[in-house]
Amino acid sequence: MAATVAYDGTDFQGWQVQPDTRTVQSEIEKALAVLNGGKSPRIHGSGRTDTGVHARGQVFHFDPLRMMTPEKWKSALNGLLPEDIRILKVVEVSPDFHARFDAVKKQYRYFIYMEEVMPPELRKIRHHVRSLLDLEAMRKGAGVLQGAHDFRSFSANRGKPETSTLRNVMTLRLEGEAPELCLIAEADGFLYKMVRQLAGALLRIGLGELSLGELENLLRYPDRNHLAPTAPPQALFLWQVTYPGGSRHECI
Amino acid sequence: MAATVAYDGTDFQGWQVQPDTRTVQSEIEKALAVLNGGKSPRIHGSGRTDTGVHARGQVFHFDPLRMMTPEKWKSALNGLLPEDIRILKVVEVSPDFHARFDAVKKQYRYFIYMEEVMPPELRKIRHHVRSLLDLEAMRKGAGVLQGAHDFRSFSANRGKPETSTLRNVMTLRLEGEAPELCLIAEADGFLYKMVRQLAGALLRIGLGELSLGELENLLRYPDRNHLAPTAPPQALFLWQVTYPGGSRHECI
Repeated sequence: MAATVAYDGTDFQGWQVQPDTRTVQSEIEKALAVLNGGKSPRIHGSGRTDTGVHARGQVFHFDPLRMMTPEKWKSALNGLLPEDIRILKVVEVSPDFHARFDAVKKQYRYFIYMEEVMPPELRKIRHHVRSLLDLEAMRKGAGVLQGAHDFRSFSANRGKPETSTLRNVMTLRLEGEAPELCLIAEADGFLYKMVRQLAGALLRIGLGELSLGELENLLRYPDRNHLAPTAPPQALFLWQVTYPGGSRHECI
Repeated sequence: MAATVAYDGTDFQGWQVQPDTRTVQSEIEKALAVLNGGKSPRIHGSGRTDTGVHARGQVFHFDPLRMMTPEKWKSALNGLLPEDIRILKVVEVSPDFHARFDAVKKQYRYFIYMEEVMPPELRKIRHHVRSLLDLEAMRKGAGVLQGAHDFRSFSANRGKPETSTLRNVMTLRLEGEAPELCLIAEADGFLYKMVRQLAGALLRIGLGELSLGELENLLRYPDRNHLAPTAPPQALFLWQVTYPGGSRHECI
């Protein structure tokens, strides 16, 4: 089975199971354990999300523990899960489907609120920018970053140095109207903290603290020491994961 | 001085000062006390909001404790207030200005999310409706309720029976597109819990549980025992208060 899941990341230490902390994966595995007489299968997400990051369309798969229709799995899980995790959809998949390895595209959205004061009910789902950003410059910057590049300068220092840092960013565009802006990023995959570093770099461009030439240099001379600033996590949503043959709005 | 204030009502027992509970008014008075060497003046809001209800444009006035420009009052208060209360604007007003008695119009907005599953980060600012509402019937119902009527059937049982329950609802309309709907209500004043009861009645119409004829009867035979259902609080925002000569988006 594969499931599409939405979560409010505020009260989680991210997606991945860790001892003695509340994570999205461990809450879902706990709910599955209830349906399996105490024994829970491991679930496999399309990737991790960090502490504070939300999801509207994370995808995971698991080996079904009992015979139930996808609709039943969905309602049984939603009945057991805490209110900050909601299963949007469950579908049957072939036994060799893998939520991580089969993903062909991921979409993240980064939400910015550009105004002197931000409505306080948005503080856990937006990045508040008090200054007036130069949106035209940010759009040009997004155009520079779009495409297939070595994004080593836009990944946090993790993973083996020999691992490829080449990624294809199919979409990077700024949408919306002030005060509500949204950076949409689609790629075949993202490096660790890459979306937040792309957002961080574009925000610095919008503030006039980084030039388009300097941004081009970050791509031209890929270097993990050339770190772009990391934008805060609470504005980031894993929006959608696409699989081969899948339609835009469905998990598979 | 008069101030426009936004708050996330989630963690407050409403607006009004009460002993031993966290309220918006008491937090603002605490912040003012700091600026006044420990002695706080009472502030006067345009009206109370209930536990869990939010505001984008509540207005209050207070007697200034020291000579400061409105801009300084705003930044000093925002520096002292908790992050779930934000002062949007401070303006100088004449000494006889009263935030409650001078208000000529109030606008509330009630936010509905109509979809089988709701994104969990919205659960504290939306009312989740799983069924498909009959929006056309709800719009007709809103038209019935609009205007000057005795809204006794739409107020919770509080206040003296001889108090007038006549109100002029200038606007009551349903905006937005599924899944995000918004009921906008403007009146010269609202009775206790009136907006949530108007929303509750219209939701029942949308669900086919109340007819337009029954709705008309609630207006025709005003009676506090004819209680309309009260919609939950977390979807309600006090959006704007208008004063004579004031522009739409400003507090005075």
